[in-house]
Amino acid sequence: MVNYPNKKKPVVSITPASKPKHYTSHRGMSLEEDIGLSNEYYLVNDRAVIYKKPTPIQIVKVDYPKRSAAKIVEAYYKKPSTTDYNGVYKGKYLDFEAKETKTDHFPFANIYKHQIDHLKRVLDHGGIAFIIIAFTHRNEVYLIDASFMIEAYYHSEHKSMTYEDIKEKGHIVKQGFIPRLSYLDIIDEYYL
Amino acid sequence: MVNYPNKKKPVVSITPASKPKHYTSHRGMSLEEDIGLSNEYYLVNDRAVIYKKPTPIQIVKVDYPKRSAAKIVEAYYKKPSTTDYNGVYKGKYLDFEAKETKTDHFPFANIYKHQIDHLKRVLDHGGIAFIIIAFTHRNEVYLIDASFMIEAYYHSEHKSMTYEDIKEKGHIVKQGFIPRLSYLDIIDEYYL
Repeated sequence: MVNYPNKKKPVVSITPASKPKHYTSHRGMSLEEDIGLSNEYYLVNDRAVIYKKPTPIQIVKVDYPKRSAAKIVEAYYKKPSTTDYNGVYKGKYLDFEAKETKTDHFPFANIYKHQIDHLKRVLDHGGIAFIIIAFTHRNEVYLIDASFMIEAYYHSEHKSMTYEDIKEKGHIVKQGFIPRLSYLDIIDEYYL
Repeated sequence: MVNYPNKKKPVVSITPASKPKHYTSHRGMSLEEDIGLSNEYYLVNDRAVIYKKPTPIQIVKVDYPKRSAAKIVEAYYKKPSTTDYNGVYKGKYLDFEAKETKTDHFPFANIYKHQIDHLKRVLDHGGIAFIIIAFTHRNEVYLIDASFMIEAYYHSEHKSMTYEDIKEKGHIVKQGFIPRLSYLDIIDEYYL
């Protein structure tokens, strides 16, 4: 999935008439995968301890076959009560949600009210809370402090934040080979 | 499950010859339930934001019936990569595991090596890391700093910590009606 130096670039990327590079398509990775790899890099390099929480599942029925692992045969997805990611960086509590959008709007329908309220609580208790938003058609990723999202969610007349809002109030996240998304650099520069 | 004031106490608890009260039986609650209720109390009273992480599940097959929720029909339990609980308290990152034991030993077989390593990393990054251990036959609950557990896990000749060790190095957690387990009082007194 990675173009190594000795490999010829595919024609598409040197043809000016080609489609613009998409965040999710130029490497075939989703935002979630990129954040996962970045967190792994940060962990292995002893820079931070940040994990994605498991997806909450309501388990209804489990079979216990002889001589093999318990098998869940009926279960349902539950709404998450919090955000997807949290952890510790330089002694501080970090908490964030990550979302992709294909347009120049981030619609509030993409985030649950109780996730907004959770981020508010984290801020109130002295944690660092933010949202990472990928504008996939632009191949740009931003980190925006949760306070701006909470403010807009509760007080804006619109039901979304625009690309311009997020660009103005947030910080662009540097993309690279490793880590994929250097989002902790923004924490260093603007939070600590 | 709770004995309200106007309800007569069951005979067993006023008979001197009755069995000693067990942590898990005198209210019919498990340690996990008590911590869950304590965390809810702390959340509602705006004292801390601490959650249990969802159980990690490996999803293999999902059915998408028409007009109803996606149904997971094959899934398996995965080993947790971290601990069960984390959150933010007074700006600090808190991370812990909770375990019950029926004897005067806490066997290291009850905790995964990668959970011990995770707690070590949390400490290295300036977080507060501990283990809450309930000695169910004694109806006593202790909070012990992860550093003691890590030390014993890697350097003790025994494959367990004793009740005496934990009593000496840890702190007893006050039990009550609400919160069930006042474990944040120990954080206030010994950590902050």
